[in-house]
Amino acid sequence: MSGNTFGSIFRLTTFGESHGPGLGGVVDGCPAGIPLDESMLQLELDKRKPGQGGLASTARKEADKVEILSGVFEGKTTGTSIGFTIPNTNQRSHDYSTIKDVFRPGHADYSFTAKYGFRDYRGGGRSSGRETVSRVAGGAIAQELLRSEGIAIYAYTVELGGIPVNAYDFEGAQDRPYFSPDPDIVDVWNDRVKDVKSQGDTLGGVVEVRATSVPAGLGEPVFDKLDARLAYALMSVGAVKGVEIGSGMNASCSLGSLNNDPIGPDGFLSNNAGGILGGISSGQDIVARAFIKPIPSISQEQSTVTTDGIATSLSIGGRHDIAAIPRINPVLKAMMAMTIADMLLLDRRLGVRD
Amino acid sequence: MSGNTFGSIFRLTTFGESHGPGLGGVVDGCPAGIPLDESMLQLELDKRKPGQGGLASTARKEADKVEILSGVFEGKTTGTSIGFTIPNTNQRSHDYSTIKDVFRPGHADYSFTAKYGFRDYRGGGRSSGRETVSRVAGGAIAQELLRSEGIAIYAYTVELGGIPVNAYDFEGAQDRPYFSPDPDIVDVWNDRVKDVKSQGDTLGGVVEVRATSVPAGLGEPVFDKLDARLAYALMSVGAVKGVEIGSGMNASCSLGSLNNDPIGPDGFLSNNAGGILGGISSGQDIVARAFIKPIPSISQEQSTVTTDGIATSLSIGGRHDIAAIPRINPVLKAMMAMTIADMLLLDRRLGVRD
Amino acid sequence: MSGNTFGSIFRLTTFGESHGPGLGGVVDGCPAGIPLDESMLQLELDKRKPGQGGLASTARKEADKVEILSGVFEGKTTGTSIGFTIPNTNQRSHDYSTIKDVFRPGHADYSFTAKYGFRDYRGGGRSSGRETVSRVAGGAIAQELLRSEGIAIYAYTVELGGIPVNAYDFEGAQDRPYFSPDPDIVDVWNDRVKDVKSQGDTLGGVVEVRATSVPAGLGEPVFDKLDARLAYALMSVGAVKGVEIGSGMNASCSLGSLNNDPIGPDGFLSNNAGGILGGISSGQDIVARAFIKPIPSISQEQSTVTTDGIATSLSIGGRHDIAAIPRINPVLKAMMAMTIADMLLLDRRLGVRD
Amino acid sequence: MSGNTFGSIFRLTTFGESHGPGLGGVVDGCPAGIPLDESMLQLELDKRKPGQGGLASTARKEADKVEILSGVFEGKTTGTSIGFTIPNTNQRSHDYSTIKDVFRPGHADYSFTAKYGFRDYRGGGRSSGRETVSRVAGGAIAQELLRSEGIAIYAYTVELGGIPVNAYDFEGAQDRPYFSPDPDIVDVWNDRVKDVKSQGDTLGGVVEVRATSVPAGLGEPVFDKLDARLAYALMSVGAVKGVEIGSGMNASCSLGSLNNDPIGPDGFLSNNAGGILGGISSGQDIVARAFIKPIPSISQEQSTVTTDGIATSLSIGGRHDIAAIPRINPVLKAMMAMTIADMLLLDRRLGVRD
Repeated sequence: MSGNTFGSIFRLTTFGESHGPGLGGVVDGCPAGIPLDESMLQLELDKRKPGQGGLASTARKEADKVEILSGVFEGKTTGTSIGFTIPNTNQRSHDYSTIKDVFRPGHADYSFTAKYGFRDYRGGGRSSGRETVSRVAGGAIAQELLRSEGIAIYAYTVELGGIPVNAYDFEGAQDRPYFSPDPDIVDVWNDRVKDVKSQGDTLGGVVEVRATSVPAGLGEPVFDKLDARLAYALMSVGAVKGVEIGSGMNASCSLGSLNNDPIGPDGFLSNNAGGILGGISSGQDIVARAFIKPIPSISQEQSTVTTDGIATSLSIGGRHDIAAIPRINPVLKAMMAMTIADMLLLDRRLGVRD
Repeated sequence: MSGNTFGSIFRLTTFGESHGPGLGGVVDGCPAGIPLDESMLQLELDKRKPGQGGLASTARKEADKVEILSGVFEGKTTGTSIGFTIPNTNQRSHDYSTIKDVFRPGHADYSFTAKYGFRDYRGGGRSSGRETVSRVAGGAIAQELLRSEGIAIYAYTVELGGIPVNAYDFEGAQDRPYFSPDPDIVDVWNDRVKDVKSQGDTLGGVVEVRATSVPAGLGEPVFDKLDARLAYALMSVGAVKGVEIGSGMNASCSLGSLNNDPIGPDGFLSNNAGGILGGISSGQDIVARAFIKPIPSISQEQSTVTTDGIATSLSIGGRHDIAAIPRINPVLKAMMAMTIADMLLLDRRLGVRD
Repeated sequence: MSGNTFGSIFRLTTFGESHGPGLGGVVDGCPAGIPLDESMLQLELDKRKPGQGGLASTARKEADKVEILSGVFEGKTTGTSIGFTIPNTNQRSHDYSTIKDVFRPGHADYSFTAKYGFRDYRGGGRSSGRETVSRVAGGAIAQELLRSEGIAIYAYTVELGGIPVNAYDFEGAQDRPYFSPDPDIVDVWNDRVKDVKSQGDTLGGVVEVRATSVPAGLGEPVFDKLDARLAYALMSVGAVKGVEIGSGMNASCSLGSLNNDPIGPDGFLSNNAGGILGGISSGQDIVARAFIKPIPSISQEQSTVTTDGIATSLSIGGRHDIAAIPRINPVLKAMMAMTIADMLLLDRRLGVRD
Repeated sequence: MSGNTFGSIFRLTTFGESHGPGLGGVVDGCPAGIPLDESMLQLELDKRKPGQGGLASTARKEADKVEILSGVFEGKTTGTSIGFTIPNTNQRSHDYSTIKDVFRPGHADYSFTAKYGFRDYRGGGRSSGRETVSRVAGGAIAQELLRSEGIAIYAYTVELGGIPVNAYDFEGAQDRPYFSPDPDIVDVWNDRVKDVKSQGDTLGGVVEVRATSVPAGLGEPVFDKLDARLAYALMSVGAVKGVEIGSGMNASCSLGSLNNDPIGPDGFLSNNAGGILGGISSGQDIVARAFIKPIPSISQEQSTVTTDGIATSLSIGGRHDIAAIPRINPVLKAMMAMTIADMLLLDRRLGVRD
């Protein structure tokens, strides 16, 4: 397996399975002098815990205590690589007999087995969503770097189970269930979740990620466009099946006269571009949306086959989340943060010369 | 500027501006023994020419003759890096006085200037769509490699100006105007284009790209998921504002019971996953869609500012395309081909050991 | 800081300072199915401990207990990234007052300060030789991979303090003081070390590294020649000031008729090439030598300046090693092992196609 | 084949065989605003031509006219990737019958065949020394970048056929035969070359490369040490079998008290370190030496085997160079220039933050 490193200048390399001794990572390329301690990483990790807000995730206990092993001295980064670990503490052995020998629809079971000749049925191994704790920790470091540049990152739910929000208070969203920017939608979503859950089903949604106060000029004009890097970052999170920038999909059925953002003496008069023109940041908010598929583990009966190819049916019990939202939000936030941190450092290197 | 190299194993490095002596690139990492000659690259380049099918692109003459300088001997690749050039022949000096000192809405003018302190107003320089000829040539080489593995790539238009197709003959699409999989939609699209053109406006659309006979097992489970790499590849093409895999956006408002692809003894019973599970190919067709924004150059009056920040209005004359489709199709095809070639070589390296 | 990752396919990313909580690393790209457990890493780490063989290194106690956190299941690699940590246990606070405010000659003090604006005077921080424990652990993993291919790596001392060996039993060297291939030289070297130590001075030497049973064909013909990668790997170890391959330096004053290796029906008749021709392995033993400078910390008085640029003199007390040999040997062994593992995986990817 | 790209930030990707239509490359990552035109590249390319100074190289005619296709506008770099080509003009078909079916001792014939299953007997193909023209062109661009920073690079011969120089006028060396820093040695070397040539033999030598006015702080402390990168760069040139930095090999038999460079109020009092401490530049001249093996093509009879393994003997006729020096000097100069340019841009990115 390869591809366990993310980024070109600000680089996160991760390791860890859902059922090994622990997970962790190394951040290379973080400049010296950034205020950082474990509490800042823990804050983001806690947002990813189950049972945070809304009814979509079940209240399992997962400690996820992070320890920083290097790269920080007296509360500031030293510029050296930052190593961190997150021990696995919640590995009570489930009964996997029901899924051990079948390919779960919607999961990586079949494709992973095709690639590696085996799979870790105890929760997906490296393919488990648990892998994302290392991303969240790395993203927290990126967010501290960005904060020192005045840049803030937000990830808030704009649609759940087909029900969109009517308000966009993304700053307040951080403290609401489902990280909702609309206070009034929470109960509606709760009802929808309860309803779907009662049918033994699951649902998806849409998460909008936003970066504010990003300077104009980030991104490279050809392959490493800022939007291309963002699409890669967000789509690399399991369950994400689509990514759009600014007006995105809607731009495809719009007209040039409507989709172009007119410019006035005080700047752009709209932001259909999502803050990116020709792959380079324009100084407006960077706005992207990730489309999340429903959790594939459902208790309803599904047709599948055993690992020997024999037709069978499967009902996945146990306490599974009903939606990847809101636990996926801090992960998407982390991916946008690391992407912008990377492009920021990349740009510092090669702008016009002084 | 950086980011002029695409891919990790099968790597394309490109160069060239719209108004310099020429463009070209180097393909590194292509195995030896692949049948290749210039005609195979020319075939794809010709599909990108203006005035091919439909009324959306104007019939300017662009030679785009490619020459291969290395890496091919007696009709086969030697395994060494393949250098190719495409001279610029169509550089009759336009009158740029109207756009020289203003920021064109929807173009990279403002962001590029913010990054580099200047811009090449003579057609966008490195940000010009002309840069994509090198991608098409590199993609043609990737397609020959994939062909030797039995893999074929298709790029066909499934929606133009908000009008979707009703048929999906993607094999026949290669020979139809707009690379349309639906013979009956061409006239409808032509009328739509004429109508929009008469209003001095432009339109966008949706292009579906598909890879057939891709073996299961391509893609890496964490950051370098096949869908993440594809999203990066497609979004790196100018005018693309959204990318989805399989059921994509629709998955976000679906249910687990509907979106999961059941499995039978003969394989998957549907393909909502778009051929990718957990970031790894499943053996089904790889299906992605790119959402294309309208061409930003319109003859309608638009509000903008001069490079000095003075409010003004702009009408862009000249013979501009009305839609990026169908000229963008071979570019998207090339990006998918290079991505799958890269993942194929990446996987060969690190699968289960013999 | 960047550059904390080594290798392209078999990749080691390291972290850790001499005085932080711990050190460690992540190995990405190791295939699945390689027998591996912590004892194999510990074995190599123990060879790097002080007080092993000979009088050149002092007998400080350093536990250096390694823990593997991921990538290994039931005694075999799973193909996922392998994370490991090595806690710092021996951090009793020294008295640094004598060196805190002066630049030590021969150390990185001045250049590191020039780069980062500060330095970690408590043992060099990231520039400390302690950083190499992560290399040794990563190299141990590479050696298991190579062992599964029948390849063995050796690092033995061929010269110490200007005194060369007269025998080359490199297999037996692993169990001798100074990792000496010559049993009779050990006492001579011990006398030399005692003598130099009594003068408050230090000395250097030459370590030969060798890989046996390496298949012909490893290495890329242009920039990534096997010898170029090896030179990079060995020179990246502190204290190494020169690297040669095969006849190396001597080739420069030889003649073509003497330096060429004639070929017979049973293979090459000599190995002046050190097993590498045109950057590609020839199937003979890969032989390289690293030239090690004397330990810069000496108790003799040296002229230097304070961090404020005031002239002063410095005598470095405490229990310092007299030579980097033999502790540097397992580090050089690790660097050669990771380099060959990397080129092996690189070559598997892109040879002639089947 | 892979490994046709050199550098991480300032990146050169090359292509071209000795007998194809042409060679060339792409430089990515060169900042905007550097004065550049083809004459600057041509100047360095001309230094690599045969028959320049001394009797070691024969006076074949090779045009090597370079053309820049992109990245330069009105005499300055634009920051976009710089593409250049060098057509092959001197491909008169030799008679290869003598070498077609035998492995030439000292050449890559055997190892290349083992890797790729074939070889290009018409001059080595990608393994030919001709490949280095692209390096020289790329290095010329790097030297212009360095010049704008006040940094100069020199490559001069300090030993030929075992005869060392007695003077070190490296600035004057650029205009002397063999790029000799010692005017009085030229005749001695000429006699040596004549003598060896008359015996149908060849010889090697030592080239010293030097960078002046390099700021302190370049290089990364762990794997990407400046000396490690330099060793990689120089060793990647065919015929180089050893690399040393500063006192290099001699340091291994010296003492700490002699090898350490004392520091005074006005800086270092000697430069045994070769301008690099802990992998980071110290502000002194960067000094490295490359040890060059004799040209393997000799007219004396050598024992070898046919490609079928049958014992035979070989005498290589034709007009071959007697030594790689002085044609290799501009290549080594180019490699050092690109390495320092790369580290310079790398360092700009990640020093201490403002």
